[in-house]
Amino acid sequence: MYELYYWSEIQGRGEFIRLALEEIAIPYRDRAREPGGEAAMMKMLSGRGLSQPPFAPPFLRAGKLLIAQTANILDFLGERHGLSPPSEAGRLFARQLQLTVTDFLVEVHDTHHPIGVQLYYEDQKREAKRRTGEFLKARVPKFLGYFERLLARRPRSAYSLGPRLSHVDLSLFQLMAGMGYAFPNYMRKAARHYPKLLALKERVAARPKIAAYLTSGRRIAFNESGIFRHYAELDR
Amino acid sequence: MYELYYWSEIQGRGEFIRLALEEIAIPYRDRAREPGGEAAMMKMLSGRGLSQPPFAPPFLRAGKLLIAQTANILDFLGERHGLSPPSEAGRLFARQLQLTVTDFLVEVHDTHHPIGVQLYYEDQKREAKRRTGEFLKARVPKFLGYFERLLARRPRSAYSLGPRLSHVDLSLFQLMAGMGYAFPNYMRKAARHYPKLLALKERVAARPKIAAYLTSGRRIAFNESGIFRHYAELDR
Repeated sequence: MYELYYWSEIQGRGEFIRLALEEIAIPYRDRAREPGGEAAMMKMLSGRGLSQPPFAPPFLRAGKLLIAQTANILDFLGERHGLSPPSEAGRLFARQLQLTVTDFLVEVHDTHHPIGVQLYYEDQKREAKRRTGEFLKARVPKFLGYFERLLARRPRSAYSLGPRLSHVDLSLFQLMAGMGYAFPNYMRKAARHYPKLLALKERVAARPKIAAYLTSGRRIAFNESGIFRHYAELDR
Repeated sequence: MYELYYWSEIQGRGEFIRLALEEIAIPYRDRAREPGGEAAMMKMLSGRGLSQPPFAPPFLRAGKLLIAQTANILDFLGERHGLSPPSEAGRLFARQLQLTVTDFLVEVHDTHHPIGVQLYYEDQKREAKRRTGEFLKARVPKFLGYFERLLARRPRSAYSLGPRLSHVDLSLFQLMAGMGYAFPNYMRKAARHYPKLLALKERVAARPKIAAYLTSGRRIAFNESGIFRHYAELDR
């Protein structure tokens, strides 16, 4: 039985793990959403009694293992449950792509927190506006363009690494869903540049286990405490 | 023969790979520092003719494999050449720590580029000053404090994961060297909080192959084009 530790009120980075756990359809405990769960998580973050303490959530307990860092957890789950390619080259590439998703997420987060994560958005609104402008102009096309070209290389494959779903596809789904939530105006205009990414998003959303999850109470809605936030003033 | 592709004028993320290659003492080509090397790198970044195109440098050619993302490359080299722990738990933890170093590096970079990587520092100086203030006040203690406590848990071990050097130690060396370069005043005052990290840095620097490398022409000096930059106005 896997136990996921993450903040209880947001999708955030934990959502990338939740999507993988839902797809592999193994029962898991979403610990922070149980009574006393966040307190348990905070205790583990203090590191007391742990030989391999995590720096930050999300982290996953898998038997005796305690694993942190989203890309690391996904690689672990992917290998165990068929969400990673079987070859060394394929697995290295899946990891590389997942780490590129990680890089993009940091930049998404920093659109609303360009000065400091410990400050309120309201205290860095001016900088947020400037950073978001640069992000939408230069960074989104760079990242999404890369993934779009990747999909275009495999026109006959349903997924980014071939005919089989991988953790990378689940993460690209979440990334496109989040961008659509945070920047609906921008993404509407940009949609013509990313037809394959948008089709992939729909394909993942239509998978039976993912579809069931998305309409369940286990899926927390996007909100303005997470990574993908909608602030009208940032979505020109 | 490994081939490293990275920018020719900076340490940057490539330096974390160089340190590992130097320590394992296998001949490698630092392609971007050869004539025509950056052009070759740019061609590869276009993705033409590559089945697994990288998003950004550094990347490593290892026979038929082309591997990108610093933490991914270090994990690969670590496993092949004894710089990763042999157990699954140990290797997952080494990866997790290396990804935490990655996270910290993004924040170091953003002290001088809080608005956009494609803009000059001079065009985001005001924001850089504010972001750096928050970084030094809240983020450096959080990250370095975590690594310091980790070292304190193993008082009889020479290295962060035990008696044997790992890629994590090489990266912590580089991180402490970089912080000392970028923020000498701050780090002088903060030194008393990080005795074990500073001792680890000296221990790594004294290893014969690393010591030889650091005084060689292969080590590019820190400068104001890299990740760790010294701007007096940011080092309060």
